[in-house]
Amino acid sequence: MGRKQQPVTASFQGERGAFSEEAARLLLGPDVEVVPCPRFQQVFERLASGEVDRAVVPIENTLHGSVHENYDHLLNFHLPIRREVNLRIVHNLISAPEMTFAKIRKVYSHPVAINQCLQFFADHPEIERETYYDTAGSVKMIMENRPPGVAAIASAAAAAFYGAKILKRSIEDDRRNFTRFFLLSRPGEAEPEATVREWKTSIAFTLRNVPGALFRAMSAFALRDLSLTKIESRPLRGKPWEYLFYADFLGRADDPVSQRALNHLQEFTDSFQLLGSYPKSA
Amino acid sequence: MGRKQQPVTASFQGERGAFSEEAARLLLGPDVEVVPCPRFQQVFERLASGEVDRAVVPIENTLHGSVHENYDHLLNFHLPIRREVNLRIVHNLISAPEMTFAKIRKVYSHPVAINQCLQFFADHPEIERETYYDTAGSVKMIMENRPPGVAAIASAAAAAFYGAKILKRSIEDDRRNFTRFFLLSRPGEAEPEATVREWKTSIAFTLRNVPGALFRAMSAFALRDLSLTKIESRPLRGKPWEYLFYADFLGRADDPVSQRALNHLQEFTDSFQLLGSYPKSA
Repeated sequence: MGRKQQPVTASFQGERGAFSEEAARLLLGPDVEVVPCPRFQQVFERLASGEVDRAVVPIENTLHGSVHENYDHLLNFHLPIRREVNLRIVHNLISAPEMTFAKIRKVYSHPVAINQCLQFFADHPEIERETYYDTAGSVKMIMENRPPGVAAIASAAAAAFYGAKILKRSIEDDRRNFTRFFLLSRPGEAEPEATVREWKTSIAFTLRNVPGALFRAMSAFALRDLSLTKIESRPLRGKPWEYLFYADFLGRADDPVSQRALNHLQEFTDSFQLLGSYPKSA
Repeated sequence: MGRKQQPVTASFQGERGAFSEEAARLLLGPDVEVVPCPRFQQVFERLASGEVDRAVVPIENTLHGSVHENYDHLLNFHLPIRREVNLRIVHNLISAPEMTFAKIRKVYSHPVAINQCLQFFADHPEIERETYYDTAGSVKMIMENRPPGVAAIASAAAAAFYGAKILKRSIEDDRRNFTRFFLLSRPGEAEPEATVREWKTSIAFTLRNVPGALFRAMSAFALRDLSLTKIESRPLRGKPWEYLFYADFLGRADDPVSQRALNHLQEFTDSFQLLGSYPKSA
């Protein structure tokens, strides 16, 4: 009981106010105590060592594809996936509270964010772009230094955290920009289950590149009417005849049908790893 | 004959000296006349409009995954793939010729490049990092402004192009960092064929998300002993029951077996597009 009163701690990569922090609040509630880390590896290390209770990491983006580095960490650290969430990446023009839009002449942000707001810059040729190492970090910088006529591009969470003002909401070119995040725990520490309607399971496996290898592997799911919601091959460097696959399917690893499918799959794979079963996000 | 004397022109995204320019020289020889463009869309537009003869675009990276934006342009512009090449991404520390390594206190580059050289910065805590919008652009900037004690991180091609000096070669953390590039032409304009040992074909298709849909699609290849070298699913936003797939297989679209496989595949797909057949890279 006493332990339950403690706020949950969660590591994430980036500055305070990063999109990963927004995902952490969606996954763990507003009271989560977040621990920002400069690198993804540290996000995993802090959870593995017990410094934090949970970790939150991006795994794929609708415009930029899968985050292979985090798949590598999932394979190395054996920290199970407990939940998923899809977050729409909304870019906002953010300034110090005393600033007005008409005064803005320069905007700082991470180059990926700047490149996702090109229409905004085309519509406002008087505004110059400057790169910064992090979206939330650019808000932190303008709030600390208060350079005149300068704004940042970042999440609403970053504006709130640093006490900054949103001058224009949602200036991104493409609204179909979503990032999928995973919530990780240490093995054995399950999330409370509530009423889960549908489960999803993530796995990784390697196959030798012979014709029909993937087809045989897929049969383990198709013959049992299990739906795949993701499949991706990744060439293994230095092993030109072996491929690493990521797959997600609808089902829970320990239900009887999934169990039989995973046993069947492992007749064909060279290596296999269960990354976790978790409630399918809405 | 006269036409052959003209240098081939090729559009690419980035500044002169970018990794895409290096790929263009590998694909088209040292005499290619390159046309840098700020955005990927413009790279495709210039080829479609006939302003250039060829285009060179990155399509996937071993650390960062597929470049979905360029898959979208391939689907929209119908410019066929003619060749592929895999380029190892080597990051070099680059300065003006008068500089020495001992004097360097600040390094400019694109944040992705900086993040791929973290061990270098850990080993040299006296050196500060600064973000810049482009790797090659950071070399251009230090050569124009000659700020004292400042270096850049970029390709050897960028150092050569701007007449800069490589202070340290290959400072990237992970040598398994490769980018795969496509060479594109306008429809009907084939590359000379020479002696091609093995062909590869890239396709994209959509399937409704019903159990076994991908399995049936894969059967078109497996039943004909055609090897898949890539498969990737991409959720279509706003169409939660439809998935876009990218696939590569060994074979040439117009050989009889491939043709039968592609006809068979199209019995299952909602939409299908041939992106091109090209010699498999070594």
